[in-house]
Amino acid sequence: MTPFSAQRVLTDLTEQRQIGAYKTGLHRPSLSAAHMQSLQWLCEKMRAAHLDPIIDGIGNVIGRSAAAGPKLLAGSHMESQNYAGWLDGPLGLVYALEAARVINGDAKGAAVEVVAWFDEEGHFGNFLGSRSYCSGLSEGDIDAAIDRTDGRKLRDALAKVGLAGKARIGHEPGRHIGYLEAHIEQGDWLETRKLAAAAVTSIVGIWQFKITIDGTQNHAGTTRMAIRRDAGVAAAKLLVAVDTRFPEVAGPRTVWTTGRITLEPGAPSIIPGRAEILLQVRDADPETLLRMERTLIELVAAANDAGPCGLRVEALRKSHPAMMDVRFQNAIIDAAEKVAPGRHTHLPSGAGHDAQILSAVMPAAMLFVPSIGGISHHWTEDTSDTDLATGAEIYVEAAKMMLGCQ
Amino acid sequence: MTPFSAQRVLTDLTEQRQIGAYKTGLHRPSLSAAHMQSLQWLCEKMRAAHLDPIIDGIGNVIGRSAAAGPKLLAGSHMESQNYAGWLDGPLGLVYALEAARVINGDAKGAAVEVVAWFDEEGHFGNFLGSRSYCSGLSEGDIDAAIDRTDGRKLRDALAKVGLAGKARIGHEPGRHIGYLEAHIEQGDWLETRKLAAAAVTSIVGIWQFKITIDGTQNHAGTTRMAIRRDAGVAAAKLLVAVDTRFPEVAGPRTVWTTGRITLEPGAPSIIPGRAEILLQVRDADPETLLRMERTLIELVAAANDAGPCGLRVEALRKSHPAMMDVRFQNAIIDAAEKVAPGRHTHLPSGAGHDAQILSAVMPAAMLFVPSIGGISHHWTEDTSDTDLATGAEIYVEAAKMMLGCQ
Repeated sequence: MTPFSAQRVLTDLTEQRQIGAYKTGLHRPSLSAAHMQSLQWLCEKMRAAHLDPIIDGIGNVIGRSAAAGPKLLAGSHMESQNYAGWLDGPLGLVYALEAARVINGDAKGAAVEVVAWFDEEGHFGNFLGSRSYCSGLSEGDIDAAIDRTDGRKLRDALAKVGLAGKARIGHEPGRHIGYLEAHIEQGDWLETRKLAAAAVTSIVGIWQFKITIDGTQNHAGTTRMAIRRDAGVAAAKLLVAVDTRFPEVAGPRTVWTTGRITLEPGAPSIIPGRAEILLQVRDADPETLLRMERTLIELVAAANDAGPCGLRVEALRKSHPAMMDVRFQNAIIDAAEKVAPGRHTHLPSGAGHDAQILSAVMPAAMLFVPSIGGISHHWTEDTSDTDLATGAEIYVEAAKMMLGCQ
Repeated sequence: MTPFSAQRVLTDLTEQRQIGAYKTGLHRPSLSAAHMQSLQWLCEKMRAAHLDPIIDGIGNVIGRSAAAGPKLLAGSHMESQNYAGWLDGPLGLVYALEAARVINGDAKGAAVEVVAWFDEEGHFGNFLGSRSYCSGLSEGDIDAAIDRTDGRKLRDALAKVGLAGKARIGHEPGRHIGYLEAHIEQGDWLETRKLAAAAVTSIVGIWQFKITIDGTQNHAGTTRMAIRRDAGVAAAKLLVAVDTRFPEVAGPRTVWTTGRITLEPGAPSIIPGRAEILLQVRDADPETLLRMERTLIELVAAANDAGPCGLRVEALRKSHPAMMDVRFQNAIIDAAEKVAPGRHTHLPSGAGHDAQILSAVMPAAMLFVPSIGGISHHWTEDTSDTDLATGAEIYVEAAKMMLGCQ
């Protein structure tokens, strides 16, 4: 077995951050030139680690091993959010490559197979790559997908990079003992407690709601206050009601966010005739999500009854919380105790990850390493070299334990 | 003196509505082909009424008379809001043309001079045409003006229609005894009371404020509720505070409107780091406007002190209320009593009009006719033929009284 090398990990991380560099981060949207170049870089690294890379018809890159023993699937994603950080995604692939280099070729024939999932960041949809692999994506889903930044069709973008018509690789039942993914925490829990790593217990479910408010569009000068049906005022009142009521029914880690409010027509001298609110709730407990949804429905109904506007709520998306495999969690904690004694914990993940999709078809686990200041989805995202190296060593040890090759 | 003809008025109104027709309304943005065609139509009508039309360097069209007696300036605007109604603007010009046809050539040499002000609807700015005439518009203002729909420069748009480099016509002190403008009410006061006309008492002042809220942009999944600084929630709270507090300090006719709320970055999974609110207050009383402004500043300061976000308020625009000339108001009421006995009133204008700009340099007055359903700035805007005809007759009578030619 090749010895673990922290230097190799840091060198790989530094190499990949040159591809699509933006300030100290990355701008590497799905299927951009920089993204495709990063996949080529990954394929070379796979070949050097005796893996046989294939890029499939949805842009997943899978590096397979010819070894005859137990196999662990390990990876993450290479694309970034727009103008975002250098670790969100690539970290998990660099760690997986190192695990493959250390473990593959061992006497028992155990192997790590490395995978880069397409579009975890959702430029074109929700977890399109891992859903395709796990059989949760139809051709119709691909037909319908468009880039949220520039509106181009996924089909056209795939054709442009030469992937149109290529087969998509699906999950082979029995091939893998499970899936392992490393990621920065994207919060400040580990950093503030000076911990080196966390085993993720579960990945939150995300329930996304659209609230539509119908009022009456009218002239802002000639319409008396008494007869107005202002959709914007109704939107503000609902959000304040949510802000007051939600904390009373939330769980200890429930979070909710209104990321967008749209007033129509949005002109300074016109009373808004319509408003739309995007409200999202996240929790790892399905019961809590249901309770939050019921509360939202009650608040919308109360606002509707109070008038003068008409409100309705619609669930746009309900992803269910995903539990991480307990034996794999134990392997991560045991590995962390070996590498960084006493400096580890369990944490739920408030962000979505491909591991939640994989957990439906095989045991899945995640390792978190610290994020400086908890910052992510921003070019200042960072982790110290020490934490990056320690995390990599824990990851490789955990992979060995999962594969039973001590 | 030529007798008044309601038929001529209705024919003119019908002719002009063909130019840039949209459903039953108009789409005639400033300096569009339809707008320029409508100005040519107006010039022909002016010539037929023995007026000498000039289109000046800002797109104002002024039809001057060679008569030696007292002159009344009378008009409105030919351009429309985008996809809007057929009367908002052109009504005032058709009435002015009829007054010129009836009055001009009278034995005393009295005359109505007709004017179409450029861009009352604010495609490129605020009252650019009437401000240019009244000396309130610099070359720098014109340099800076851009179309709010498509962003093209006013200078380029003027050059395209051949107006670049032409002189702008300014107000000639002493030339006119005053200014008269007719307009649909854009509210339902006259219609619901079955009245035929109103003499406008004053045009409201419009104070436009921008409230900027600084929070902290962060990940909607990994950031705990307790440490969030959500600019969107702060915006909603401020708007509810405005909705609660403003009615307590408002005058009987004060109106206020939040037409636009912008959250940045506006993504469903990102906590808004910044919010911007456009809030407008209108009243005809300067004291009331000041009181509303002080209240807004207090509410913003209280929200700022309460935290966690930083709020600040800035006045973008303060147009002052404009009083209409009392003698001219009396002439309108006397004319209305003659044409439609008992079916008239006084009203303030909640919307802005060129008459407010003119009132700074000469006595100014406005006549309102009913709006069906109070609808305006929409293609369904309408007024019955009977009301249109009655309004025109009142207008011509009022113009005669103002000019002293009975």
